[in-house]
Amino acid sequence: METSVDTSRSHAEALDRDDPLASFRERFLIADPDLVYLDGNSLSRLPRATAERLARVIADEWGGELIRAWDHWLDMPARVGDLLAANLLGARPGEVIVADSTTVNFYRLVTAVLDARPGQRAIVTDRGNFPTDRYVLEGAARDRGLEIRWLEGRPDDGPEAAEVAGRLDEQVALVTMCHVDFRSAAIADMAAITSAAHDVGALTLWDCCHSVGAIPIELERSQADLAVGCTYKYLNAGPGAPAFLYVRRELQDRLRNPIQGWFGQRDQFAMGPTYDPRPGIAAWLVGTPPIIGLAAVEEGVGLVVEAGIAAIRSKGMALTEYAIELYDAWLAGAGFRLGSPREARRRGAHVSLRREDAELLTRSLLAARVVPDFRPPDGIRLGLSPLTTRFTDVWDGLSQLRELS
Amino acid sequence: METSVDTSRSHAEALDRDDPLASFRERFLIADPDLVYLDGNSLSRLPRATAERLARVIADEWGGELIRAWDHWLDMPARVGDLLAANLLGARPGEVIVADSTTVNFYRLVTAVLDARPGQRAIVTDRGNFPTDRYVLEGAARDRGLEIRWLEGRPDDGPEAAEVAGRLDEQVALVTMCHVDFRSAAIADMAAITSAAHDVGALTLWDCCHSVGAIPIELERSQADLAVGCTYKYLNAGPGAPAFLYVRRELQDRLRNPIQGWFGQRDQFAMGPTYDPRPGIAAWLVGTPPIIGLAAVEEGVGLVVEAGIAAIRSKGMALTEYAIELYDAWLAGAGFRLGSPREARRRGAHVSLRREDAELLTRSLLAARVVPDFRPPDGIRLGLSPLTTRFTDVWDGLSQLRELS
Repeated sequence: METSVDTSRSHAEALDRDDPLASFRERFLIADPDLVYLDGNSLSRLPRATAERLARVIADEWGGELIRAWDHWLDMPARVGDLLAANLLGARPGEVIVADSTTVNFYRLVTAVLDARPGQRAIVTDRGNFPTDRYVLEGAARDRGLEIRWLEGRPDDGPEAAEVAGRLDEQVALVTMCHVDFRSAAIADMAAITSAAHDVGALTLWDCCHSVGAIPIELERSQADLAVGCTYKYLNAGPGAPAFLYVRRELQDRLRNPIQGWFGQRDQFAMGPTYDPRPGIAAWLVGTPPIIGLAAVEEGVGLVVEAGIAAIRSKGMALTEYAIELYDAWLAGAGFRLGSPREARRRGAHVSLRREDAELLTRSLLAARVVPDFRPPDGIRLGLSPLTTRFTDVWDGLSQLRELS
Repeated sequence: METSVDTSRSHAEALDRDDPLASFRERFLIADPDLVYLDGNSLSRLPRATAERLARVIADEWGGELIRAWDHWLDMPARVGDLLAANLLGARPGEVIVADSTTVNFYRLVTAVLDARPGQRAIVTDRGNFPTDRYVLEGAARDRGLEIRWLEGRPDDGPEAAEVAGRLDEQVALVTMCHVDFRSAAIADMAAITSAAHDVGALTLWDCCHSVGAIPIELERSQADLAVGCTYKYLNAGPGAPAFLYVRRELQDRLRNPIQGWFGQRDQFAMGPTYDPRPGIAAWLVGTPPIIGLAAVEEGVGLVVEAGIAAIRSKGMALTEYAIELYDAWLAGAGFRLGSPREARRRGAHVSLRREDAELLTRSLLAARVVPDFRPPDGIRLGLSPLTTRFTDVWDGLSQLRELS
């Protein structure tokens, strides 16, 4: 027995009319109104306020204030970190900074945990994790002769807490997972996995690249130990903008930043003879912060905060639900498989559709001015960034895919 | 017997009229014509072309092309690296990338050398090196139980090749020095120190932050092994712009980037199961490159290339020579000491003047709208960035200091 689904474009238009976040799209540059952009989870659109803010940072602060601008630039990594902590990460003040790249931050936290726990000889992670995380772990394990206990990775889903728990014992120093799977969008159970890790004395490190700004994150409530994430997806901060790094307050005295740079130095401009790390999260700063990028993060996060993560989450669920309805109606019979969880509460703001010829289909979609992402081996990933994606974009994109398939 | 020196302001005006690089100042934003800016070696002025280029990168590339811009963004770290290599570093194509911060790059190279030479248990460096280098080395030595053999550091000068040679034996894995001293501007003898290091089988790592764009660098001719440097000083790339990293071609197969990230992965978007580094310098990429920062580096370096490093070097020598003449005439008798080498060929493009109350004097200069830098314990550092500093700026700054002292 089938549910009757309204697959008309006018239904998508009605959904757009009822969308409480619809007006946020106007806050972004829409350079080409005919482009169906379903890749805001790889690179967000440009917020108009960001273009204006960056022009001011460049001309007035760099150009006008020159070196004197460091008086207010110096606290940006912590200030923008606190904005993220309070509004999007469920973390406390002084637990987050914005600095470096996700990979550099991931490396630093992995290294810090392994150095602090030399007696524990194993890491638990998942083959479905984002490649950069896997590559960093591979290097860290090789250099120290550690064992990596790999979960096999489920292409349509994410790691299960019970499966993680099955790999744990007191040999495990670190459990690290992606909060939202980069292919399937499956949400890992942060609290359950962290609790299982803590039961054997391991710490958890969460890659929040695909969750931050898309779904609420509760680092403190989940007792998560460490986290990283990027800012150029749902946080709208632009290509290669700096990433964030979270260290739970209770761990800050016990973990050491392996890269001892002058921005992590107490009384930095005394330029003293020996390294003496700043207290708290500031010890995780390294080199000179990228100010233009930090300003872009502040603006991009500001828009998310203004819209509210609860409203963003609701729309993300509705958009992905709608995409799956159209998939069921149009594509399920055409050799596609759904590469994402069916339950809205179990997935983030993207949906993967799998078919063997996904790479070719992605190229055809691009030629037809629909922009998804191809994810090997067989996934077409539709990123439905809630602040800029309309229900009609979902309709247009999927109806184009239906025509091609 | 004193040389007669013309200390009149009209003489400075005449020098400006004769300056073949004078017109380059117009290529930069001069927001406040009355400000005497003598800190272009901490943060350069803003090139007008950079403001325009960044506006285009932000609106047209990020805003307009969106994710598709990665087609031409992907090669920016290597392309801008090659621009630097050919024109300013005396390096070959494929030996330089622009990525991360100076500190992260310094850390990676130090780690790579020490990991490749576990049998050699010592590092030779100088207490006068820039703090971030010293802090990284301190951490690396502590973690591996290595010995650091410190040269004592000369506040008015830099490391001497003979003194370095005196600390060398076959226990030394790495010799690392600043090419131009951040306080005194003394130029280290890159070729002689490298040759001495090679004689005992050690590698050299050069911090070129205060030399790149100010004086010619000959990495290949000097046989230098490794180098890093920042881009926000004489390369005009703005606050926290990404740094560069050089690995001599012959070493690229023998040193391993300790941070294995997805941008260093061969066939990156296949997202394969194990790390397989890209050939050559690309193996030193880590996370997603900061595109806005890279564009700023490309523009800033472009200006330096257009002016020509030989002309820049000549003007840097003339400006610092002139500053020292005025110091001799006005300040040497007022309790100041020259904190830089007297021979123009032995110093970069800044000059340090030392007096016990330097910190207070710096504050008074700032209040009088002259911007130098204070460097502890007792240095007033005058950065005479050749593309934007006039001889009249030197005159105005030093005559103000004379009034205050």
